[in-house]
Order: sequence, then structure tokens, then C-alpha cells
Amino acid sequence: MCGIVGYVGDGQAAPVLLQGLEKLEYRGYDSAGVAVYDGTSLQVVKAKGRLKILNDMIDGGKSLPGNIGIGHTRWATHGAPSDVNSHPQVSGSGKFAVVHNGIIENYLSLRESLHRHGKAFVSETDTEVVAQLLDYYYQGNILEAMVKVLQKVEGSYALGVICAERPDEIIAVRKDSPLIVGLGEHENFIASDVPAILSKTRSIYRLNDNEIAVLKRDSVQVYNLDLEPVSKEKVHIDWDISAAEKGGYEHFMAKEIMEQPKAVRDTISPRLKDGRIVLDDITLTKEEIERFSKISIVACGSAYHVGVVAKYIFEKLARIPVEVDVASEFRYREPVVNEQTLVLVISQSGETADTLAALREAKRLGARTLSIVNVVGSSIANDSDDVIYTWAGPEIAVATTKAYSTQLAVVYLLAVYFAEKLGTISQEVYASYIEELKLLPEKIEKILENKEDIQYLASKFFNVKDVFFIGRNLDYAMSLEGSLKLKEISYIHSEAYAAGELKHGTISLIEDGTLVIALATQTKLFEKMMSNVKEVKARGAMVLGLTSEDNRMIEKETDYALYVPSADEMLLPSLAVVPLQLFSYYVSSMKGCDIDKPRNLAKSVTVE
Amino acid sequence: MCGIVGYVGDGQAAPVLLQGLEKLEYRGYDSAGVAVYDGTSLQVVKAKGRLKILNDMIDGGKSLPGNIGIGHTRWATHGAPSDVNSHPQVSGSGKFAVVHNGIIENYLSLRESLHRHGKAFVSETDTEVVAQLLDYYYQGNILEAMVKVLQKVEGSYALGVICAERPDEIIAVRKDSPLIVGLGEHENFIASDVPAILSKTRSIYRLNDNEIAVLKRDSVQVYNLDLEPVSKEKVHIDWDISAAEKGGYEHFMAKEIMEQPKAVRDTISPRLKDGRIVLDDITLTKEEIERFSKISIVACGSAYHVGVVAKYIFEKLARIPVEVDVASEFRYREPVVNEQTLVLVISQSGETADTLAALREAKRLGARTLSIVNVVGSSIANDSDDVIYTWAGPEIAVATTKAYSTQLAVVYLLAVYFAEKLGTISQEVYASYIEELKLLPEKIEKILENKEDIQYLASKFFNVKDVFFIGRNLDYAMSLEGSLKLKEISYIHSEAYAAGELKHGTISLIEDGTLVIALATQTKLFEKMMSNVKEVKARGAMVLGLTSEDNRMIEKETDYALYVPSADEMLLPSLAVVPLQLFSYYVSSMKGCDIDKPRNLAKSVTVE
Repeated sequence: MCGIVGYVGDGQAAPVLLQGLEKLEYRGYDSAGVAVYDGTSLQVVKAKGRLKILNDMIDGGKSLPGNIGIGHTRWATHGAPSDVNSHPQVSGSGKFAVVHNGIIENYLSLRESLHRHGKAFVSETDTEVVAQLLDYYYQGNILEAMVKVLQKVEGSYALGVICAERPDEIIAVRKDSPLIVGLGEHENFIASDVPAILSKTRSIYRLNDNEIAVLKRDSVQVYNLDLEPVSKEKVHIDWDISAAEKGGYEHFMAKEIMEQPKAVRDTISPRLKDGRIVLDDITLTKEEIERFSKISIVACGSAYHVGVVAKYIFEKLARIPVEVDVASEFRYREPVVNEQTLVLVISQSGETADTLAALREAKRLGARTLSIVNVVGSSIANDSDDVIYTWAGPEIAVATTKAYSTQLAVVYLLAVYFAEKLGTISQEVYASYIEELKLLPEKIEKILENKEDIQYLASKFFNVKDVFFIGRNLDYAMSLEGSLKLKEISYIHSEAYAAGELKHGTISLIEDGTLVIALATQTKLFEKMMSNVKEVKARGAMVLGLTSEDNRMIEKETDYALYVPSADEMLLPSLAVVPLQLFSYYVSSMKGCDIDKPRNLAKSVTVE
Repeated sequence: MCGIVGYVGDGQAAPVLLQGLEKLEYRGYDSAGVAVYDGTSLQVVKAKGRLKILNDMIDGGKSLPGNIGIGHTRWATHGAPSDVNSHPQVSGSGKFAVVHNGIIENYLSLRESLHRHGKAFVSETDTEVVAQLLDYYYQGNILEAMVKVLQKVEGSYALGVICAERPDEIIAVRKDSPLIVGLGEHENFIASDVPAILSKTRSIYRLNDNEIAVLKRDSVQVYNLDLEPVSKEKVHIDWDISAAEKGGYEHFMAKEIMEQPKAVRDTISPRLKDGRIVLDDITLTKEEIERFSKISIVACGSAYHVGVVAKYIFEKLARIPVEVDVASEFRYREPVVNEQTLVLVISQSGETADTLAALREAKRLGARTLSIVNVVGSSIANDSDDVIYTWAGPEIAVATTKAYSTQLAVVYLLAVYFAEKLGTISQEVYASYIEELKLLPEKIEKILENKEDIQYLASKFFNVKDVFFIGRNLDYAMSLEGSLKLKEISYIHSEAYAAGELKHGTISLIEDGTLVIALATQTKLFEKMMSNVKEVKARGAMVLGLTSEDNRMIEKETDYALYVPSADEMLLPSLAVVPLQLFSYYVSSMKGCDIDKPRNLAKSVTVE
């Protein structure tokens, strides 16, 4: 995810950059760095770890002279957190310094081609490719070089560039990653987000995709890719600064829920190429995949619930038996795991202690290990034989939303990938899953557009004492996540049950007015689910049904109904989870709970 | 699930029907009703609530003349408990009265189509569709009409029908729901279960699926769907009816808890001969056992919890991978099950509809099947390749106790038996397990002798709102059962959690005074459990610890402690479950709940 800033003006650049980065640290804190032009050459200072380390190194910026510069706070994606992988990245000639937020998807092939042209790379980042390309194309006109670079790179990016040969200007451009331009008096700014510059100016331009801005002390000019000037409208910001860090949202959780279309797109789209799923990340061969007699999935909390979905998906598509364990249980139950087992571990932070311990136990038993992790270079990522990263960006709220969604997206990619390798699905089915996966982000957007419906339902139920989530099959897996989400932030005692199992005991808890949230997205099981709905309604329950637009007859059976867009039913969990997140969020908000930091909990549980 | 009875003979029908229904009330008690032909027309009397209400309305049946009739006690599925939704359901013409146990899955579409043909419905039940269809197809021959109805309806059913135009006969049919025919002198009966007619006759027919019986005063003829006569074998019932009475205890549940030493001894000791486990019941050879690549355990409710224990036991002792599924989920998730899979199903009644359906799915997939069942000749016993009976005797209380304990005993026998055959345990270990198994009944007796300690603890906590049961490994499996027991009879919202997983979300529900019951019988995990105890205590929880006499240091960490006798740790679940049963029983008793017949529940769940 990363945060970037840039300054050109009358003042000293470095202190302004550091102040700006401080406000962007929520976007990542694996490393930080700045580059300034000191009147002679580009000076780059950067360090792994929190911004504070960089701040101490340059005395709050004071020890670094110069009136133009760029800065960066990093959320590691390509290349582990380290000094050398920190931004800014500098080109081989030393002429260009680049800060970047986003992912250059084709960086590997670009890197190879630059390598053949004699360019040497010092970092593992995708960003260094941009700096080297600028070197390669630069023949005196930065803008022209920049356009050529943009024609080459694929992916998402916000870029800030300074050049030792043009020390009066910053070049900035964005595509699918945020970037704004701040307009001051004899000074101008770029930033990933408004808070970084709000103490300096409230007047900004919002750059559109593929607009290139040239910032000087007293002017800002924006161009399109044909280098024709674009006229921009000034926007006045009247937020207060604390809201701004949350992007205008009241809570990080709300912000992160809304970021899901992007997070899922960032996770899926770089791995779809020419109608195929390409998992450059992993080294597993077809032969190795064929040798697995079992997949054992190990995780905690919401990541465990991703595992429960994954069991259905892998078994159905790839016909490999799957076992799912809570990590704290896996380790001590002497699991039957060996060389023919693929142990798949899932963790947002990559530091979850229970999961890490389970991973090590799996390795001790000789299993092949693969992890799905959001934090590059984390312990779990480092210790696994293979890792597939989710590109969710930093998640601040304790209750996970976008990390869950991106983990699920990776599960789909992996299961379809395995199934195709194993020949358990046809090429037609393979192709159709790829098409369906591409459509997920916009379908999630659609759900988010109607969030007020869910807010209304939350207002009806926020004061209930007990809630039961029921579903069958994939809907049971979603019930687990919906229930956990609600209980962890609203403190309502909710519980998830396989819908058919409720009558074997727990139905005795249903009484007049008990809220039952019935998930019924699976058409094949719809009738059975409606029987279970009738059972609880016959005991007085209020039932809120959740299904896809294909099953509007749910309204006949339930008191309230919520719909998600139609999709292949295997993929509906990716959609169904969103209303459940929103419901929990609104209930918790109406109860006045501390949504982002619920009592008794911590974001990343690094104790067993 | 419902219970049905029918009578035709020399005597007055209504009193016989009421007596029969009384014995079937364990199958449901949302409403009760009878229909008799009084010489002129069908008379139907029915009422929401317990059978006693109906009994009072018709003076024990005396006020309702007639020598043929049908009766019903209801566990509501389609339509809330109410007078109008009670059975019998009568057709629009008034000609047919129907009692039904099961679910007509396609009743909505049938209802709509009948509606278009001008039929008006008075209830919300699926059953009324059957009555109306009989009207629709009837042209003077009930049997022919019945066959047409059966061709239309989908789902599961046991049906009893009387017709005003044929007042000398009862028509009965079943599919996937239990139904027997009782054979008397100048009188015949139908019933869902044997006790309903045991005071009248011990001679019965067991109907198979899709067999239609026509009962008259002096004859019973059974037909197949082509209306060809089927010859049936008489079965003689030699049970002792007094076993089904409470024997001095206030509740069946108390009686059944106290019967556990005997039940476990009866189940274990006939299978121990000359220091070996002898399973004459099963035909599995050593070679067949060696061929299993997986054991898949399928069950519902408490029997499912036996399965969760069994996973640990089988994997540890016999090193065969084990998968445990809730039966309602197994059937629909396309499980990876084949000829190398042993599917082990567990059911007290042997009629649990979800489990029966799962068993049939397993057979369809080619798996070898083995069932653990308490009722001889039940559907699950009949349909399995092999069956091992638990010798618990009839269990009347809805909340299972002795059936659970005997199922667990069979699991131990089977796992040790497998392990010895597979050579995964030494002869010494084999011998020591046999010795330990022999000691279980007297250790359970010891716990029961100190039941007042548990009664005292129940008095401290009976008014709590929420309870969490936590444990690791085998103690987690026991937590599941302890929690279910408490919730089903006391209506307290309790929930079981793997102790290490609590901190990944659910711990946010712990607040000052929340009761946490911490199971810590496993010495290897004792320290880890105490860490989890500290975590919840730090959030204000009151902790009741349960362990074996070997771990007295638990008193340092918990507010209250309960002990069971020492034993091999693998066997401790058989002991630990007993205090949990007693705790639930006493809490429920102090709350004044209807312990033997908790609201919303039925003993044997014969619908999906």
C-alpha cells in the first residue's frame, strides 16, 4: 500500500516530508525514506522500521538541506522489509529518485530486459524498474521519458520522481493508486492522502488516472499521456485531520470495508494473464501437486474461517481431501501429516504465534508448506516453502475485513489453479472461473453502494442479546465469519450453526424475537435451508435472510431479506461476507462500541 | 419429527390413541390431536400444547365414540405450533384425515397447483397438501388415490390416513420416516415407535420404504407401489416396558445419568474376553482395516461430539486420518469418500434422518460403513455394512447422557481394536487399555457418589446468562458436549471454544462475572490451559476448572475446581463428561426448566 509525499518550495524539504510521512504511517511502516536535492546531487536516506528511526537519523530532517524532495513509508510487497528495498529507489546513473505506491505487475520481465541492456539492480523491488527505465529512456526531457515508461509498465502506481538534472521540479503520475497535489504559496506538494499536507494547505488537485503533474515552486501543470495540458479544478478540503487519516470514514473498519473492491482487484488481477492463472509466486510443480494426498489448512480466527470455505472449494474443484484446523489445536493433536501433505497456513500479519508454531510443526513432520500472508517478509512468509501474498495493504482495524476478502480471493485462485493442473475441471470451467473472478471487485462495489439497506436493518436489531447465524455448506462457513465479526466488535453473543444441526440441541435457545441470520446462497440447498428457517420461525425467531438475487422467493419465508449480486455459487462467499461485515459494523456503531479497538483484543496475536 | 398412532378394532379408539401418544410424546409435544370415525363422520379434536390438554378436552378419550382413529403428537416444522396447524389435517371435502411425520419438501409448489384447482387451505402445514391431494385423486379407491399422491410428493413421511367413506380401514405408508404395524386380536395398530403399542401387543410388522399397509379389524395387508401384495415377517418384541419408567428419579435424565456405570459396563464387558477385545458384531478383517486410507465419522448433536473425541483417539492410537462431519453437512458437500474410506456413523435412535441420509450417501460413494447404534433393527443399523450396538437401554430424556457414554465406550473398544490389528500399539499398551477400560464403570460410580459437590456449584451459577466452555484437544471435544448439554436443557447461551482460539475474537465477550468452565484433564497441555485461564481471568471471568485428581494445582488458577478420578488420559473424556452432565442437570433443575422435554426439541430427529 505505502504512502508517498513530495515537496518543492521555499522551505527546507526534509522536515516537511517527515511530517507528511508521519500522517501516512497508517499506510505502512515497514521502512521509510526520503530523497532531496541538496544543491549538488540527490541525497537519499532510508531505513527499515518505523519512521522514527529515519527521523532520528536526520534529526527531524534538519540535517538534510535542500528545497525539493520526495518521501515514502513502505508496506512491503515486492522484496522483504530492508534498507535496500526501502524507497526512494535510485536509478543506476544516480539521476533519478523514485517513490512508488502500488504494484508494477510486469516488473519481472522488464527487469530481465533491462538486465540484458546492462542495467544492474540493487533491490528486489518492482519500483527500481521504474527508476532504471527512466534512466534508459531519458534524453533530456523527463516528461517524454516518463510517458515512455508509462507505456511499458503494467499494474497500479502512484509515482513521485525527482531528477538531479532538473532540480526545480517534481514529476508525479498515478494509475489505480491514490495521489493528490497540494497547492501552497511558493510551495507545492504531492501526497498519497490529504492528511499528509493538511497542516500546509487545504487547496488540492485530485489527479485522475494517467495524468502527469509537473510541480515547481510557483506552478503546477498537469498533462495527459499525449503531453497536452489538462486544466484541473481546485478542491478545497474542509475535513478535520483525524477524519482524514481514515479517508473521511469514522473508523478504519469502515474504510477497510470500502477498500475491498480495490484490495480484491489488486490481489487477483496481477495473477490473471492471457486468460490463465499465473502464480509466479510459487514453485510447486504439477507433479508435486499430483503427489499430495491431503491438504491440511491451519489458521486462527477469521483466517480459519477462510480455511473452512477453502475446504469446500478445494474438495469440490480439485478433489483433494482437505482438513482444516484451528492452529492452536493442530500443533498438539499429533496430526497425521507427512511428505504427501500440503500444509496451507493463512495469516494476515504473518506473525500469528499459534499459526507460526503450527507451521513449524508441519515442517518438522515433513509436510510441504504454502502460506497466504499479507505482510511481506513476515515470519510465516519467511518460514514457508512457498508464499502467496494478499495485496490488501495495511489493515488497522482489529476486526479483519479486507484481509479476509483477499485471503479468500487467493484461495479461489489456488484452487482453480490446482484443479486445472490436476485435470479435475475442464478448460471451459477453468475459463469461466477466471471470468467470474474478474467480476468480483465490481460486484463487491455494488453491495457497498447499497450499504444503507444494511444500516437500516442494523438499526432494527442492534439491541438484541443473542444472534444465531445459520447456513449449509459454504453458507455455514460464511456463518462462522459473520458470527465472529458481530461478536468481536459488538459484544453480542452470536453463534454460528450448520443449519441442519441446530435442531439437534441448540434450537432450544430460540425464543420469541431471537434474531436468526439465515444464509441461503446455494440454490441446491435453498429448499433445505427454508425448512430450517421454518423450524426457527415456528419457535418465534425473527429471520433475516441473505441470498443472491437469483433467490428472491426468500422473501416468502423470512422477515427481512438481503441480496448480493448473482455469481457462480462457489464464489458467493466473496460477496456474502460484505453485508455481514457491514451489519456488524453498523450494529457496533449504533451500540457505541469502540469499533476499531474492541475490548480484550489485539490486531495480531503474537502469543499462543 | 412427530409421533403417529392409529387404531382399528373392537375397542373404543380414542383412549387407545391417547395412551399411545403418551408414549410418543418424547418425539414432539408442540401439539396433539386425534381423528376418529364416530359412525357418521370424521370427528377431529386437536390442540396446541402438551397432550394433557387434549386429554382433558375429550375426557381421556371417553367422550369421543368410534372404533377407528388416528392420532398425532407434533414437533413443529412447517407452520408454528397452533391449533390449526396441529394434526390430523382434514381434506377440503372432510372425507380424509391425515397424520404425518416427516417433511413434504415440494409442498409449496403442490399447494399452489391445488390452489389453482380451487382447493382452499386452512393451515400452514405441508401435511394438508397430502389430505387435499387425496381428495383430488380419490374416485372411490383409496389405495389408487394414495399411490397417485405418493407419486406427487417428495420428501420423507410416515402417513396414517382414515376416510369417511371407508370407515373400516386405516391406510399407512412410510418413506424415510419410521412406522410399524402392531398386530392384535380383532384389533390392529400403527405407530411411529414400539412403546406406543407395547401394552396392547408385542407382535409387529416393520414397514419398509414405500410399503402401503391396509389395516382392518381382522386383517393387515401390505402392498408395494404397484399395489401387489407383499408378504411381511412378524417380529416379536421382548423389551421390558418398565425400563421406560423413571424408577424413583424426578426426571428420566437423572435416572439415565445414574444408569451410566451399568450402561458402560454392559457395553464394554461382553466384548472383553480373555484379555482381548472381541468384536463378534463386525465382519471387518485385518486386511480390510489395513486398506482404509481414512475414517470419516458422521453424526449429529451429541453423537457428533463423540465423533470429535473419536478423531483424536483413532488418529493417536491407530494413526489413520479421521474426518468428522455433522451429518447434515456431509451429505451435501461432495465429500472425498471412496472404497478406501470407512464411514463410521453414530446415532442413538438409529433413525436420525440426517445421519441416515449421510449413511446412504456414503454407501452410494462406495464406502465401507459401520454404525454405532442403540436401537436394534433401526434403519441405520439395517443399512450399515456392520453395526456395533451400545447397550444403553431405552433413553427417554431428550438430552442424551448414557447413550453418549456408551457410544464413547464403543469408540475406545474400536480404536484399540484397530490399533492392535494395525500394529500401531504394542501388546503391553493394548493390555493396559483393556485394564483401564474395565475400570471405567466404577470410576463413573465414584463421580456420581459426589454429585452433591456439583449440585452446590450449580447453585452458584444457575442464574448466569452466558457460559463459555474451553479446552484443548480431548478437552475441547468435551467442551462441545458440556456446552450443548447446558444449552439444550437450561436455555443458557453457552458456547464451546478451543482454548487457544478464544483470543482470536470471541474473548471480547468475556466481561466481569462471565462463567468460564475450563477443562484441563490433559497433563501435557495443562500449562497452556492455565495461560488461557489467566487470559480470561484478566478480563474478569469466573473460572470453574475441571481436571483429574492428578492436577490439584488447578486450584491456584481457578475460582472453583472439580475433579474426576485419575485414568489414562485418553480415557478421561468418559469421566469428564459426567460432572458436565450433572452440572447441566442441576442448573436446569434450579431454573425450573422442563428437563426431560426441553422446549423446541425432540428425542429422535427424524426430519432433515
